Amino acid sequence: MGNRDTGLTPVTVLGLGLMGQALAGAFLRDGYPTTVWNRTAAKADGLVAEGAKLAGSVRDAVAGGRLVVICVSDYEAVRELLDPLEDVLDGRVLVNLTSGTSAQAREIGEWAARRGGGYLDGAIMAVPAGIGTADATIVYSGPRTDFDLHEPVLRSLAAGTDRATGTDGTAGAEAAGVGAAGTVYLGGDHGLSSLFEVAVLSLMWNILNGFLHGAALLETAGIKATAFASLAEQAIGTVAGWLPGYAQQIDDGAYPALDSTIDTHLGAMEHLVQESVSLGVNAEFPKLIKALTDRAVAGGRGGDGYAALIEQFRKPSEARP
Amino acid sequence: MGNRDTGLTPVTVLGLGLMGQALAGAFLRDGYPTTVWNRTAAKADGLVAEGAKLAGSVRDAVAGGRLVVICVSDYEAVRELLDPLEDVLDGRVLVNLTSGTSAQAREIGEWAARRGGGYLDGAIMAVPAGIGTADATIVYSGPRTDFDLHEPVLRSLAAGTDRATGTDGTAGAEAAGVGAAGTVYLGGDHGLSSLFEVAVLSLMWNILNGFLHGAALLETAGIKATAFASLAEQAIGTVAGWLPGYAQQIDDGAYPALDSTIDTHLGAMEHLVQESVSLGVNAEFPKLIKALTDRAVAGGRGGDGYAALIEQFRKPSEARP
Ligand SMILES: NC(=O)c1ccc[n+]([C@@H]2O[C@H](COP(=O)([O-])OP(=O)(O)OC[C@H]3O[C@@H](n4cnc5c(N)ncnc54)[C@H](OP(=O)(O)O)[C@@H]3O)[C@@H](O)[C@H]2O)c1
Ligand SMILES: NC(=O)c1ccc[n+]([C@@H]2O[C@H](COP(=O)([O-])OP(=O)(O)OC[C@H]3O[C@@H](n4cnc5c(N)ncnc54)[C@H](OP(=O)(O)O)[C@@H]3O)[C@@H](O)[C@H]2O)c1
Repeated sequence: MGNRDTGLTPVTVLGLGLMGQALAGAFLRDGYPTTVWNRTAAKADGLVAEGAKLAGSVRDAVAGGRLVVICVSDYEAVRELLDPLEDVLDGRVLVNLTSGTSAQAREIGEWAARRGGGYLDGAIMAVPAGIGTADATIVYSGPRTDFDLHEPVLRSLAAGTDRATGTDGTAGAEAAGVGAAGTVYLGGDHGLSSLFEVAVLSLMWNILNGFLHGAALLETAGIKATAFASLAEQAIGTVAGWLPGYAQQIDDGAYPALDSTIDTHLGAMEHLVQESVSLGVNAEFPKLIKALTDRAVAGGRGGDGYAALIEQFRKPSEARP
Repeated sequence: MGNRDTGLTPVTVLGLGLMGQALAGAFLRDGYPTTVWNRTAAKADGLVAEGAKLAGSVRDAVAGGRLVVICVSDYEAVRELLDPLEDVLDGRVLVNLTSGTSAQAREIGEWAARRGGGYLDGAIMAVPAGIGTADATIVYSGPRTDFDLHEPVLRSLAAGTDRATGTDGTAGAEAAGVGAAGTVYLGGDHGLSSLFEVAVLSLMWNILNGFLHGAALLETAGIKATAFASLAEQAIGTVAGWLPGYAQQIDDGAYPALDSTIDTHLGAMEHLVQESVSLGVNAEFPKLIKALTDRAVAGGRGGDGYAALIEQFRKPSEARP
């Protein structure tokens, strides 16, 4: 079929790994004229059969779209592909959905600006199968005008739209009000989406580690992980319900104990350390959890609620003896 | 009013702190003849006004109930109160809802058995205001006969009932199938409820710490904690949905990667460490998360899914260099 003139914004996808293929597939399904490129060209075969146009070079690929999405392994690969391009970005908006750090995102933002192109950094909070559905959340950061220009197109990738009242980043990066799902604009600072990505991933790893640690403890008494899962899900739901209240305390800078004080938590943390040590399961996490809480108590926060621990997370690690 | 002969099991509550008062209040509301005792007697005033009988000594209090609930600060206090009692426990069932370790629970179980009393150890997963409602979960462990005898009474404390198909603990503690909410029987081993308590608390602290760490990261870019909370809640819900599948993998001992491999996670963990270090927020948690994952990769699990990290949690901490 190839690209017909549909009146829809022509898009380009650079990088056709698991995620890039899903992104290009979503654009094609919504009828966008889609140009694709991948280092290993064979990965484009399925997309070409669905109507994508395979470009012979990165330069040709970029030239084929007004919105250029790149999704490769890492920012080193992004630099490798984009640095040789000089003026071709002119007037186009580059959307980088590769995972990286906020510093890397800001660098690419400067690079794009020097070449007259728009730039949005994004982070995908979904698996490839979720792309184009309501299960996907993709967050974007960079100039609001770049986002506004292509928002309808980007919505093909993450179906729900919850446009936030973010700042445009020109001023001192006031708090962005961030929507919960779909295609989410975070603010003008290109680093925001990477920061959000690691913040959310960190939360996910913490939850998984907490579950695995609990499962390892219970296993010593013959309780299966599947048996723990149901109670764990309930506990997770309970804690999730506390977050808006704790978040408000953090923003307010005051942490009155609503039910349990940090002192009380510390007592139970001591039990966790003891059980972990005596049962021979990992005790590093329990000890670190307790050490951080000990510091909060030493800092006079024993009578406050758990949210006061934010003060400890704000500090760089203490030197270990 | 005092205790009339209602035909309902007479109960005793020892310890009238925040939690003990809530427990006694729930029994009274359901009409159980309730005897109470507290070291500081004045804390019984409200309960006495509601119909409780205040005992003058621990011995008299225990003598007043068939089911004796104790809920004090810690197991040292439990021992202090119970050790002087000799035969008074005879034929009664003691239910200890004080927080402690599994070893402490097993000790009290032996003590009670020597004195001819039944013993259930329990753990309350609720705040005092939740007692007697569907929001409370209380888990119990010990002889099934003791639980079965008093289950209807115990249901006053945690309204939902989800009796599990646990083992009676006489044999090698086969996996207990554990219900999700309400009044939950875990199995015959007295240590199970304490173990469950720390496992669930550990999960809760990990979630809260993950949220606080993310909030500390985002705050450096001017994003407020309340703005993070909505995306965080969504992420939490997503992860909670993965747990049954991961749990099944753990029980099966095979961890095929369903979407993301441990190698892929490790790459993103490196971003988390870099962001945390460069932004000057706590990097101990990120480094520990990454260190554990590094060990899994070193152990050949890089191509597997996240649940394979259970193998690392099963091991005691590595010696730090
Ligand atoms: N998959 C997920 O669930 C998921 C979720 C959220 C975010 N992400 C992020 O999305 C990005 C891509 O992930 P993926 O799952 O698509 O990975 P993938 O399947 O491993 O694909 C990697 C892609 O990068 C290309 N590439 C790597 N180095 C290159 C280089 N030096 N020059 C040119 N192309 C290069 C590969 O080309 P070849 O085909 O020629 O090797 C391939 O197209 C990553 O940053 C990942 O963190 C993925
Ligand atoms: N509150 C919660 O949200 C919650 C949730 C789950 C589990 N728990 C557990 O429930 C237990 C009680 O908690 P709580 O909130 O009721 O605590 P609390 O309000 O501090 O009350 C402590 C109780 O223990 C008594 N006590 C302490 N040492 C004693 C001793 N040596 N001899 C006699 N009595 C002694 C106190 O008597 P006095 O009044 O004379 O000081 C008081 O009745 C703890 O193990 C806690 O971990 C509490």
